[in-house]
Amino acid sequence: MRRIVILAEGRLNINDAKTAVGVMRYGDDAVLAVIDSTHAGEDCAAVLGDPNGVGRGVPVVAHVEAALAFDPDTLLIGIAPAGGRLPDTWRAQILRAIAAGLTIVSGLHQFLADDPEIAAAAQAYGVRVWDVRRPPERFAMRLADGRPHRPGSHVVYLCGTDCNVGKMTVAVELHREAQRRGLASGFAATGQTGILIAGDGIPADRIISDFLAGATEGLVREQAEEHDWVFVEGQGSLLHPAFSAVTLGLIHGSRPDRMLLCHDATRTAIRHFEDTPIPPLSEVRRIYEEAAGWLKPAPIVGVALNTYALDDAAARAAIARAQDETGLPTTDPVRYGAGPLLDALLTSV
Amino acid sequence: MRRIVILAEGRLNINDAKTAVGVMRYGDDAVLAVIDSTHAGEDCAAVLGDPNGVGRGVPVVAHVEAALAFDPDTLLIGIAPAGGRLPDTWRAQILRAIAAGLTIVSGLHQFLADDPEIAAAAQAYGVRVWDVRRPPERFAMRLADGRPHRPGSHVVYLCGTDCNVGKMTVAVELHREAQRRGLASGFAATGQTGILIAGDGIPADRIISDFLAGATEGLVREQAEEHDWVFVEGQGSLLHPAFSAVTLGLIHGSRPDRMLLCHDATRTAIRHFEDTPIPPLSEVRRIYEEAAGWLKPAPIVGVALNTYALDDAAARAAIARAQDETGLPTTDPVRYGAGPLLDALLTSV
Repeated sequence: MRRIVILAEGRLNINDAKTAVGVMRYGDDAVLAVIDSTHAGEDCAAVLGDPNGVGRGVPVVAHVEAALAFDPDTLLIGIAPAGGRLPDTWRAQILRAIAAGLTIVSGLHQFLADDPEIAAAAQAYGVRVWDVRRPPERFAMRLADGRPHRPGSHVVYLCGTDCNVGKMTVAVELHREAQRRGLASGFAATGQTGILIAGDGIPADRIISDFLAGATEGLVREQAEEHDWVFVEGQGSLLHPAFSAVTLGLIHGSRPDRMLLCHDATRTAIRHFEDTPIPPLSEVRRIYEEAAGWLKPAPIVGVALNTYALDDAAARAAIARAQDETGLPTTDPVRYGAGPLLDALLTSV
Repeated sequence: MRRIVILAEGRLNINDAKTAVGVMRYGDDAVLAVIDSTHAGEDCAAVLGDPNGVGRGVPVVAHVEAALAFDPDTLLIGIAPAGGRLPDTWRAQILRAIAAGLTIVSGLHQFLADDPEIAAAAQAYGVRVWDVRRPPERFAMRLADGRPHRPGSHVVYLCGTDCNVGKMTVAVELHREAQRRGLASGFAATGQTGILIAGDGIPADRIISDFLAGATEGLVREQAEEHDWVFVEGQGSLLHPAFSAVTLGLIHGSRPDRMLLCHDATRTAIRHFEDTPIPPLSEVRRIYEEAAGWLKPAPIVGVALNTYALDDAAARAAIARAQDETGLPTTDPVRYGAGPLLDALLTSV
């Protein structure tokens, strides 16, 4: 178990600090403090405003120096810098953490271990730098072979209407519910937060496109050899103007047996693409089943609705509407439990 | 105009030497000799057996040393080494070419400019090493924004039932036919051979998957600003177990107005995936129109049939069958000219 402090400078909110929230909610590691000078002195849960109280009791501090008081062994870069380049103030904090002997864990596209100054410091202080987005050697240039998964295994792909609707969260909730019921369950992580939680996985968005299906196949096959149920974290959306390729590579690479559809109840258009509306859920369902079916049929058997932004009554009404429209079992697994969705999967095979 | 010798050691045949054939058929450069010690002394066209006589008059020689007699300025690595690693014999020949002052052009996944020995030699002799598969800086990490193309431009995507069925070739034939008719036409290259022919483009299979649609969009937008017709080289197939993600990224990134379907008349299953049959062309057409339509409708208006392996009577019969089945104008543009397919495009807008 690591003792983590998370750098979330200027962006400690529920939308930007996805990785921080995921690690606090699902990680096995202890999160001791979060660094955001704009909220120093507050309680993390109060800043996030998460209805489940994620971050309760975790103090927000102004900088690494203050975080060192909590005796951490790891600094996690929990957000991406605006503009994609490492701000100088962050660099100074990372170097301070290295000098204090902390392991550096980063989900940035730009690999910190390839940065000469950071690499030199890490070597000087004997510190490890883990770039979570660097594809693991065994998958980085793997081509798909299309062989079927172990008979008796069930691979479940988490589809989404868009990015950032809760696919990773739903996969983890289902995995945990399956484990609670004594099922042999695996979680195949495909994004940086999932990889941090699982300790392994593929950064799908960072894989060279020729090898995306192959890397996915390799990861899912390993899991399907060991587990009867494998929950594959989905990425992007088939309807996304920028990221649909990532989605299709994950679907065809994982060759799922069943799928679940994740949607944010308040989202009507693709985020950052307001001219691209999200079609009705029944149409999104048809599209995913169509695309999976080009290689192997994989019905969608339930809908996971993210009702984070709604009060309880509105959430229940939204769930009832989605269930009526699709004819599929629907719930918000974070708010009301993943049981009904796991039931739907179990009765479908 | 470059003076090229092509390294195709042990693989000078019509299937493996796709890049060599493409450059000889469509390139502006002079190909002086091809290197393959297993066919030294023969004529390249005789070895290839191409019905259009590609490679006629180009001698096959045993090694770089013999090729230097033709006074080349460029060595092109025209095939990938078996197993993906550079064989020692190739390395020696590349170093010999560098010592003779030749520019090195390579389509390998492994970048030659990053190889310490080759890089050092290139620097010592003042020689340029061009890794065609290295994504151009301006596209390597570009995110798609989804903006429409210039009004009045027509973007045409070349779909395929599989890899290696002739998509690049058909794109170039159409581009040339359009130029012959005085149309402002552009060719958007997305694979190494196309990039060599066009001198620019994106190595789609090498782009990080998050940026594939964005790189495609960037390339196609540049072309659509300058040309009324843009022919986008397709890659892979939506039905391909390993490469469907590349295909979808290119389609959604290029946002085509029209599409053409390319098929090898003798192919019944995906190459190397014999358990994955190619559906009837009318079904493949439906699938491509479906996937493009998730973002923007793009009808397929013609079929390009690769009849390379058939005699004339069988070729004409295959074309008639495909035309009957799909109801679309069909021809083999390499064998019988691209005119009918360009006509189909022009009358469709």
